[in-house]
Amino acid sequence: MSYNKAPSITAKVRIFTYEPCGEIVRHARRLEKEIYDNPGSLPFQEIIYCNLGNPQALGQRPINFFREGVRSLREAVADGIAARDGFPSRPDNIFLTDGASSAINMMMQILIRSHEDGILCPLPEYPLYSASIILHGGTMVPYNLTEDSGWGLEIFEVKRCLEEARASGLTIRAMVVINPGNPTGQVLSITNQEEIVEFCRKEGLVILADEVYQENVYTENKRFNSFKKVARSLGYDHHDLSIVSFHSVSMGYYGECGRRGGYMEICGFGDDVIDEMYKLASLTICPNIAGQILISLVMDPPKLGDEAFEIFMVEKEETYSSLLKRAKALQKAFSGLEGVSCNKFEGAMYLFPRLRLPQAAIKAAQLEGVSPDVFYAHRLLGATGIAVVPGSGFHPVSGTSHIRCTILPGEETITAMVPRLQAFHEAFMDEFRG
Amino acid sequence: MSYNKAPSITAKVRIFTYEPCGEIVRHARRLEKEIYDNPGSLPFQEIIYCNLGNPQALGQRPINFFREGVRSLREAVADGIAARDGFPSRPDNIFLTDGASSAINMMMQILIRSHEDGILCPLPEYPLYSASIILHGGTMVPYNLTEDSGWGLEIFEVKRCLEEARASGLTIRAMVVINPGNPTGQVLSITNQEEIVEFCRKEGLVILADEVYQENVYTENKRFNSFKKVARSLGYDHHDLSIVSFHSVSMGYYGECGRRGGYMEICGFGDDVIDEMYKLASLTICPNIAGQILISLVMDPPKLGDEAFEIFMVEKEETYSSLLKRAKALQKAFSGLEGVSCNKFEGAMYLFPRLRLPQAAIKAAQLEGVSPDVFYAHRLLGATGIAVVPGSGFHPVSGTSHIRCTILPGEETITAMVPRLQAFHEAFMDEFRG
Repeated sequence: MSYNKAPSITAKVRIFTYEPCGEIVRHARRLEKEIYDNPGSLPFQEIIYCNLGNPQALGQRPINFFREGVRSLREAVADGIAARDGFPSRPDNIFLTDGASSAINMMMQILIRSHEDGILCPLPEYPLYSASIILHGGTMVPYNLTEDSGWGLEIFEVKRCLEEARASGLTIRAMVVINPGNPTGQVLSITNQEEIVEFCRKEGLVILADEVYQENVYTENKRFNSFKKVARSLGYDHHDLSIVSFHSVSMGYYGECGRRGGYMEICGFGDDVIDEMYKLASLTICPNIAGQILISLVMDPPKLGDEAFEIFMVEKEETYSSLLKRAKALQKAFSGLEGVSCNKFEGAMYLFPRLRLPQAAIKAAQLEGVSPDVFYAHRLLGATGIAVVPGSGFHPVSGTSHIRCTILPGEETITAMVPRLQAFHEAFMDEFRG
Repeated sequence: MSYNKAPSITAKVRIFTYEPCGEIVRHARRLEKEIYDNPGSLPFQEIIYCNLGNPQALGQRPINFFREGVRSLREAVADGIAARDGFPSRPDNIFLTDGASSAINMMMQILIRSHEDGILCPLPEYPLYSASIILHGGTMVPYNLTEDSGWGLEIFEVKRCLEEARASGLTIRAMVVINPGNPTGQVLSITNQEEIVEFCRKEGLVILADEVYQENVYTENKRFNSFKKVARSLGYDHHDLSIVSFHSVSMGYYGECGRRGGYMEICGFGDDVIDEMYKLASLTICPNIAGQILISLVMDPPKLGDEAFEIFMVEKEETYSSLLKRAKALQKAFSGLEGVSCNKFEGAMYLFPRLRLPQAAIKAAQLEGVSPDVFYAHRLLGATGIAVVPGSGFHPVSGTSHIRCTILPGEETITAMVPRLQAFHEAFMDEFRG
């Protein structure tokens, strides 16, 4: 395969070697396939793996689990993606990962070559992005989502940021899109996604598509579309555009955070880069097996006719309808508070209401040396026991104050929590109204 | 606590923020403890965590698992370390990790501030070290283990390397010691460990103690001693010396590679650095829960009187005696080959025999553009199906050739494999004897 615009990667990844999973092992795998395909063609009937210190080999062949086993999990994920999108997916393009966070870190490690490399990221952002870009020595190039249009992504704003960054000497490598949004909870329209695809194709940017909330969409007039599906529907293939999609077992109706399962699908990268990524992934040996199995099950859920289908669907629907009920209750509560506005909840698992606090509260915050949202969130916690994240941690437009609140507390907890929130807010506003 | 020589860390870690696990959450935990210690002292009876998108909260309190649960696992690990060493261990100094590899990566990320920071590493080395140092932008400062003295660690050689590196302008931050050794299989004597402790204390180096093979010691006149135990036995405490110890569920008599469990114990770092490490660890949310539980069980195995004790001891002993039998059989086989020498196997899970190949073989390798060990390993694989790792991947002294072979194939497999190895080697030597 040839890739006109296939991304180059940092030399730091290319130059180290990791032989315990290197060329000789790949050759052993080829021989093993040869034995399987043409029995008797080689002077031995099996490969004896003395290369890796994997004591699971005790009393059993180490072969099956680490090769066929893991391959079949990647196949299940690829099949699930193909079924979701209606476009093919190759198991060789799937990397199973310990949740999405480590995958995102790995892509930043691969893409960022120096401080002159920039990554476009939305603001407000999930702060893993800025942290990971800093850690790998790159430059974050933020673009603002527009709160007034329901956290819309305006392509002219992204283009403006790109051009400004290029004028300052940066090379822009990739654009991060979080869809559905975190912390903002919006779902991109397909038209908007098409604009992003056209833009990234034209500008030669990798799309880093954070799609971990793909099964957290709660609005009737929008559904989740992967960026790969949108690109393929426009007629673009892996020669035209590089896309990385991240997914995780921690979200959706499954929500198995502690299991650390996830995948990334890498499209439009050269085979040499895939090899380098394999080497990099080898450094941490493998993602945990339970998580690997779980993400394959997430992408290959019970189908009509399967024994597990009925109870699976009931549980899934119950979870969705409960999450929606909770989101609505919290959104209504926040929207009803004086000086607070809250965009319509469309997806993901968060509300990100904006606070317009009295001047006296802003001054009191200044006196304590914290930003107004931090001041508010600490007061809320101290008075009610409700822990939310101050919005400034997500870097929204300067001068605005927000809090991020999950929709996850149980329905009864929310019922009990709303009057506490209201009473606190009223007292807070009264105290600082001046 | 004050630390005279507490290590400083890279600014890249200090400057990013990650609020979803930030100050407000720590404050919420303090309030929760207050509710527990003094019921009724606060205007609410519980903390409602709306900060993190953890859907495990569905239908159940998210509190217990992520706080008391995980704390008790770290307590079990700390208790196990204290029982092993006879010196106290604090749960707050334990980080549970997805195997040792991610912990080692994290320490390199923390310690390396720029290319001028050097890390002392043994050669031959486990190549995760050079890879991780390159990835985090530092400089590897190698010291040679002495093959002729059974892969001994000579402190004057380490001192020579340190001084040479300092003279070239590097700041040496840490010394990696792998004990028992990988790929070399030696176990350090306690005298040697005392020298290392004195050296690192005097020179202000962090000891990065790779102790993942602590339960793979097979020699009767040596036993495993942690570096922390050696330092404490010499009367040094956390003010005198910084030590990080890595351990993993992937090795020992348990060998649960695919589960990705591990810990690191951090001694002699300031609380501010521990806070930064907590922030860095938060970026990948948490290690997988099954692995966390498993490492706590590894460090808190069944005791005399426990129901599980008897069968546990039988399995453990069977595993040890089988591993020892296999190591002996392979060591005897390698030592008996023409031109091959193999140091006594003391610990870990590898033999690292040295090959002295005929000149004609070395020339044939040159013609193929590979090093002699790679040439030999490929020939061995192609003729017998035995996959070993060419020694050059572990960076031994230039001009020497080795292969690394695990002792893990089953006893019957080894019995079948040895004649194949012997026949291959004989034919190889005959072909190239010239």
